Amino acid sequence: MPTESEIISLIRRRVRTSGDVLTGIGDDAAVIKGSADKDLLACCDLMVEGVHFQIDWTPPRLLGRKALAINLSDIAAMGGVSKFAMISVALPDRCSEEFIVEFFEGVFEMAEEQGVSIIGGDTSSSREWMFVDISLIGECGAGCAVTRAGAKPGDVIYVSGSLGGSALGLKLLGDGVRLSELGEADDDRRTALLKHLSPQPQTTLGRAIGEARLATAMIDISDGLSTDLWHILEESNCGAIIHADAIPISASVRGLMSAAESTPRKPVACDTSLGLALSGGEEYELLFTANPASSIQIDELKNSLGLAITAIGQIDEGEGLRLEQEGRLSPLAPSGYEHLI
Amino acid sequence: MPTESEIISLIRRRVRTSGDVLTGIGDDAAVIKGSADKDLLACCDLMVEGVHFQIDWTPPRLLGRKALAINLSDIAAMGGVSKFAMISVALPDRCSEEFIVEFFEGVFEMAEEQGVSIIGGDTSSSREWMFVDISLIGECGAGCAVTRAGAKPGDVIYVSGSLGGSALGLKLLGDGVRLSELGEADDDRRTALLKHLSPQPQTTLGRAIGEARLATAMIDISDGLSTDLWHILEESNCGAIIHADAIPISASVRGLMSAAESTPRKPVACDTSLGLALSGGEEYELLFTANPASSIQIDELKNSLGLAITAIGQIDEGEGLRLEQEGRLSPLAPSGYEHLI
Repeated sequence: MPTESEIISLIRRRVRTSGDVLTGIGDDAAVIKGSADKDLLACCDLMVEGVHFQIDWTPPRLLGRKALAINLSDIAAMGGVSKFAMISVALPDRCSEEFIVEFFEGVFEMAEEQGVSIIGGDTSSSREWMFVDISLIGECGAGCAVTRAGAKPGDVIYVSGSLGGSALGLKLLGDGVRLSELGEADDDRRTALLKHLSPQPQTTLGRAIGEARLATAMIDISDGLSTDLWHILEESNCGAIIHADAIPISASVRGLMSAAESTPRKPVACDTSLGLALSGGEEYELLFTANPASSIQIDELKNSLGLAITAIGQIDEGEGLRLEQEGRLSPLAPSGYEHLI
Repeated sequence: MPTESEIISLIRRRVRTSGDVLTGIGDDAAVIKGSADKDLLACCDLMVEGVHFQIDWTPPRLLGRKALAINLSDIAAMGGVSKFAMISVALPDRCSEEFIVEFFEGVFEMAEEQGVSIIGGDTSSSREWMFVDISLIGECGAGCAVTRAGAKPGDVIYVSGSLGGSALGLKLLGDGVRLSELGEADDDRRTALLKHLSPQPQTTLGRAIGEARLATAMIDISDGLSTDLWHILEESNCGAIIHADAIPISASVRGLMSAAESTPRKPVACDTSLGLALSGGEEYELLFTANPASSIQIDELKNSLGLAITAIGQIDEGEGLRLEQEGRLSPLAPSGYEHLI
């Protein structure tokens, strides 16, 4: 079977779109010409049991929240605001009524928190696995959508929040750690599990960046910082340097990984805090580039929203992505830190 | 596990939508306030392997065509025109590259025939079953969407095309008949198989009805004539009589069922031509109601499009749906003809 990126390439090569489609396949969301002052945004995200989640370690309400959150994150990454969602769900027989009610309650909760109307969907039985596909329609000012394609040499690279927590949470789940069994002193583990099971999309930040036209390019971190930055570089035809010391590593990752890191360095750097922060997926933080002239406005936004926004490097005319660590530069592959060593 | 209609009731009870949502969950598509002169339509439809289709009897190109066609049919049933589609697909390992290319080719073919732009989607692996969800965005004149809720006593009930073919096609597939193995003289069986495997959505008719404001209510026949007419009656708070002799039964059904029907009547009427036409799902014809004053315009439309459009009964103030057959009236249950006897 071809890989996901091979299938997407096949589709992008083949697809023809009308003039109303301002940005088609290949960004976080599509951009469609709307009215004189607004453009429409549309995206969808699939979650497949056994691939994207395991039912036995995922509280159904959090699964519902996450299924919508990952779409909200895509619209935020375009600088837009989410408006209308449709939910398709295929459910195997073993899903109890309580599970289903809790799952939808999670979707509704997240929708209400974010001002999104659920306007439709489809349900089906499934022979064995649960599938969830949510499609989301949003909007932004006409011509204001922030794509992956606008980064320019000299731009500063920023990331919101802190990184590595979701990947560590997934690792802990795989090791048998469960949210319901954590004690009171388990703050770091709870934080990591929740970052994976119940990510909070950066919708206020994304919308503010879009409305103030602060970013030249933006993406949400779903595949991992290095991979998603590569997406921006490829679409913008430029290179970048990021600084290891500047990467905001989640406090939970620092706390939980410090013991492991005091042992001799492991051959797979993904097992280090920095490795998790560079290559860990499903963070749903925003990664964006901005002209240095916007730095004061970005600082103001950071203060007014009370969010961490960290400058981690610069766009340049060089080849691909490079990591600066202790004064040395090394190439950083799109598939993550572990390929470096 | 709750049934699909129980899950939909749960969602409809719980969901709150903004004022921009003119028609939410419970119609063929949602209607959203767009610009001054246009409303947006949005819908999605799931196809799950082992539930909605079997891979071993479905040519992948036809599967792709059908996955989009069933959504096009929903937008047509609102009187709108389809514009933009997103495709989510989860594929098990056993799907070959050829299968995947053919599947997408079917989607693209149908999209091009219908002037639809593919603007996005998502792909994933799947542990075992294939899963397809397409969401479609369309539009119609502001306030012109045809819902299920506008039928009035005295309205005439019309159906496009002829019925029963898809259900018979499914029955033949279940009996081991395959499209690739049919001989030249197998026209009836080919017609029935194709009606099931490759339905043609009535997009030109739906759009024309919407633009000329000819229908008071409309739905596409996906669950079966009797069930879908019940949906209109429930949403419009009225009753109806349909006439057995007027139901347009597919010529392929008449041809193939005539031998079976010459034997003594079977207890399950679904095995008769009329039974298939009344209860067979996945026809993707349009069922609509119209004021008798529109009958001349409907005749003109029928002639100009060269399509069969048949008056099959009348909306009234009576209780539920009744079938008139040889001068006698009997109640017709929403779940199909077989419940009658």
